[in-house]
Amino acid sequence: MITVPSFGDIQAAHQRIRSYIHRTPVLTSAGINDIAGAEACFKCENFQKAGAFKYRGATHAVVSLTDDAAGKGVATHSSGNHAAALALAAKIRGIRCYVAMPSTAPRVKIEAVRHYGAEITFCKPTLESREATLQEIIRQTGATVIHPFDNFNVICGQGTAALELLEEVPSLDVVFAPVGGGGLLSGTAIAAKAINPRIKVIGCEPLNADDACRSFYSGILLPSVNPVTVADGLLTSLSERTFAIIRKNVDDIVTVSEEAIIAAMRLVWQRMKIIIEPSSAVAVAVLLQYNARFSGKQAGIILSGGNCDLSNLPFHDT
Amino acid sequence: MITVPSFGDIQAAHQRIRSYIHRTPVLTSAGINDIAGAEACFKCENFQKAGAFKYRGATHAVVSLTDDAAGKGVATHSSGNHAAALALAAKIRGIRCYVAMPSTAPRVKIEAVRHYGAEITFCKPTLESREATLQEIIRQTGATVIHPFDNFNVICGQGTAALELLEEVPSLDVVFAPVGGGGLLSGTAIAAKAINPRIKVIGCEPLNADDACRSFYSGILLPSVNPVTVADGLLTSLSERTFAIIRKNVDDIVTVSEEAIIAAMRLVWQRMKIIIEPSSAVAVAVLLQYNARFSGKQAGIILSGGNCDLSNLPFHDT
Repeated sequence: MITVPSFGDIQAAHQRIRSYIHRTPVLTSAGINDIAGAEACFKCENFQKAGAFKYRGATHAVVSLTDDAAGKGVATHSSGNHAAALALAAKIRGIRCYVAMPSTAPRVKIEAVRHYGAEITFCKPTLESREATLQEIIRQTGATVIHPFDNFNVICGQGTAALELLEEVPSLDVVFAPVGGGGLLSGTAIAAKAINPRIKVIGCEPLNADDACRSFYSGILLPSVNPVTVADGLLTSLSERTFAIIRKNVDDIVTVSEEAIIAAMRLVWQRMKIIIEPSSAVAVAVLLQYNARFSGKQAGIILSGGNCDLSNLPFHDT
Repeated sequence: MITVPSFGDIQAAHQRIRSYIHRTPVLTSAGINDIAGAEACFKCENFQKAGAFKYRGATHAVVSLTDDAAGKGVATHSSGNHAAALALAAKIRGIRCYVAMPSTAPRVKIEAVRHYGAEITFCKPTLESREATLQEIIRQTGATVIHPFDNFNVICGQGTAALELLEEVPSLDVVFAPVGGGGLLSGTAIAAKAINPRIKVIGCEPLNADDACRSFYSGILLPSVNPVTVADGLLTSLSERTFAIIRKNVDDIVTVSEEAIIAAMRLVWQRMKIIIEPSSAVAVAVLLQYNARFSGKQAGIILSGGNCDLSNLPFHDT
């Protein structure tokens, strides 16, 4: 039996976490509106603590723990934004955080997790090794596993970004969110549809990691196998839980090429002078590429994060 | 006889241009405060129209023209932010803008000027060629030259950034501004000292282009000769006018190395997720490097601009 959050759960999550998170700004750009032929409202989760929306879900999961469970700490295996977000959320509550991380993870990501005080256990860069290492950590510590997206409380937390966006701009016609494991898209869709049933919710996915799109259109959960994309936050595939929520609440899932993702990222950096990571650019690329479909619409775009390796950027002279 | 703006001139300029410019936000970063041991308030002119504070001065110069003069257009020789800012200001007023530009200017800067509709005349990459080309343009068109910093109305416009910053944070102990030709620093110092005579105003300069520092300490205007620095907006030297204003109103001019500039730029990008150009990072580098001197202070920093060539960034693995 899969439990699925209601809008009330997301509202309650927002009450619980609002003093811990940044209420991120909603920005607009006349230049990008001209190019898109639409009115884009960017919810800037790149300015969220730990640099991504992941802090919302991680914080909600951590504050929801009983004191007993919290005393044993939290754990995850991740090489990305969730690990850093969970580490910071644990630090704020004053509890331990254990992270199983592949030894091949980028140094900048290892440093981010370590910076927030988590205990890292290195493992081989395979899902099997990560899961085995995580199981061993739990056996030794009794820590609670906080999954990056297949977790009721995490999904509630992620939905609070759309809640704030629609509080600020209630007249939106459509909301775009990137989709990897589907935690952000699930929370976004539940919140947006509850606030305004006529709003369209579009999942935005790299063509090179298009499991959500293929699953959405086939009605069968079809995970990606070893996907390769510049949008390194969107490599994971949907779970049964996020797939169920997305099938029920999302209007479409649209894919874009690597070139379109990088061009959209570059456009936002150049015009808005803000740093977004490639995973965020996926949603911008969808608005730009499908401009005829969204022409004249007021479009909310969740810029999911801003964590980039500045020594290794995908910009080259064209 | 050099004319020097008063604070009243800057206030009047603000009234005249406020409907044309962005009132840019003042941002803070807990992470950078921790590192600096001070409370930094960043005035984000990187979010200004055309991507830099230059739009304030250019707009003020353009709106101050008589209809007769405006009818003949404006002109400048510049390869940087002033040319793009003047082009946009002219476009908004519906008048012509002529720019003499070295044929070696970066493509991204040529495109920015062209994008705003200016007429570019290419010349050799020498000051002599630029000035001769500009004179020929004026002879043919009767356009008014708008100098990037040695111009009364431009300095008034640049001072409006500090005016807004101190409206928002009146309790600042110190204000940092980068110094190249000295237009921004002059306007900043006049405004800040008039609002609060006890406030300290610090000019921030690359060690590799330290004419303002050497002039300030010697009391003699000592231009830089062919300076080379990553802070490409700060290559120019003070004029008699800006030197006179700075001697009277600025408390100190401090220099930083190329390495410190790049490290400060990287820190702001990573922690704040905003794009600043190297010239802006010079002021951040001063706060970080002289942290003992500014410990515990509330420091306003004018982030002067955000125009970078994303294909050619100074970040490399360390």
